[in-house]
Amino acid sequence: MVRRQGPRPGGRSARVQASVHTATRDLLGQFDRAEITVPMIASKAGVTPSTIYRRWGDLGDLLADVAVEHLRPDTEPADTGEAQRDLLAWAEQYADEMSSAPGQEMLRDVLAASGSTGAQQCCTFTRDQITLIARRAASRGEAFPDPEAVIDGVVSPILFRILFAESLDPERIQELVSRIMKDHR
Amino acid sequence: MVRRQGPRPGGRSARVQASVHTATRDLLGQFDRAEITVPMIASKAGVTPSTIYRRWGDLGDLLADVAVEHLRPDTEPADTGEAQRDLLAWAEQYADEMSSAPGQEMLRDVLAASGSTGAQQCCTFTRDQITLIARRAASRGEAFPDPEAVIDGVVSPILFRILFAESLDPERIQELVSRIMKDHR
Repeated sequence: MVRRQGPRPGGRSARVQASVHTATRDLLGQFDRAEITVPMIASKAGVTPSTIYRRWGDLGDLLADVAVEHLRPDTEPADTGEAQRDLLAWAEQYADEMSSAPGQEMLRDVLAASGSTGAQQCCTFTRDQITLIARRAASRGEAFPDPEAVIDGVVSPILFRILFAESLDPERIQELVSRIMKDHR
Repeated sequence: MVRRQGPRPGGRSARVQASVHTATRDLLGQFDRAEITVPMIASKAGVTPSTIYRRWGDLGDLLADVAVEHLRPDTEPADTGEAQRDLLAWAEQYADEMSSAPGQEMLRDVLAASGSTGAQQCCTFTRDQITLIARRAASRGEAFPDPEAVIDGVVSPILFRILFAESLDPERIQELVSRIMKDHR
C-alpha cells in the first residue's frame, strides 16, 4: 500500500481523507464488498475518482487503509493488577475482535493490499499493546516474556486459527498464555 | 469457496477442471492478477464463462482453488534420521516456499476467497506433513510434541511473520523448533 505522509490535521488533505474514509465505511455497511467501486466512493465523499486513485492507488489499497484505521486499538489493555491476567484478558479480547465478521473482513482487506505498509502497521499496534503490558509488569516487579515471544507464542496462533478457519476455543487461548508465561519463569 | 465433489478422474468434468486450472496458471504467469478476468480464462481453456461461474463461483474462488492445488506438497518431509532435524528441515523449506513471491501470492489468494474450504485444505496439508514427522519420530522411539502444538508454536509464527511482512531469519525458525522440542521433553 502506498501511503503518503499523514496530512496536517484540519487541513484540506485531512478533510479529504476523513470524507473518503467515512464514505467507504458507510458503503461497506450498505453493500457487498464486490459491488463497491471507486466512483461510488468518490461520489459519496464529494471528491473526484482521480483524487482517490492519486492518493490511495487502487480500491484494494483504500480498503486496506480504512481497515488499518479501524484495527487501531482505541483503549489500553485492561489493568487487572497481574501480568498473566492482563495478557489473558488482552488475548481474549483480541481473539474476539479478530474472529468477528467485521474483524475478519478487515484482516483480509489489510492482507490483500498490494503493499505491506498496512500489515506492518497492524503488527505495530499489537506490539505496542503487548509492550505496554510488559512495562506494567516490570513496574510491578513481575517477570514477563519478551514481546516478540508473545507475538510468536500467543498472537500468531490466534491469528493463524482465525485466518485458516481452524477451531479456537477459550481453553486454547488460556493454554497459549499459560505456556508463554511458564516458559519465561 | 464452493467446491463440488472431486470429479471422476479422466471424465469430462476432470478434463474441464484441468483445462481451466492450466489456463489460469498460464495467465497468472503472463499478466498482472488485476488484469485477469473470467472470460479471458474461459477463452484460453476453451469453455464458456458460465461453466466457470457455475463450477467455481467467482474469479476469487477459482484463484483460491488453483492456489490450493499448487500449495499441496508433492513430497514427504525429508527423513534426516532424527525428529528435531526433520522438523527443522521441514520448517525451513516451508518458510522458504511461503515467503517466495509466488508463495505469498498463493497464500493471499487462498485467504481472500469467500469461503474457508481452501484455507482449511491448506491447513490439512500442513497438519498431515507434521503428523508424518511425528509418526516417524514415534517409530524411532523419539519424543515428539502433539502436531497441534507444532502448528501453534512453529507454523503459526512463521506464517504470521510472512503475512505481516515482519522479519523472519533462519535463527528464529531454529529457535521456534528448539523451543517446541524442549517444551515437550
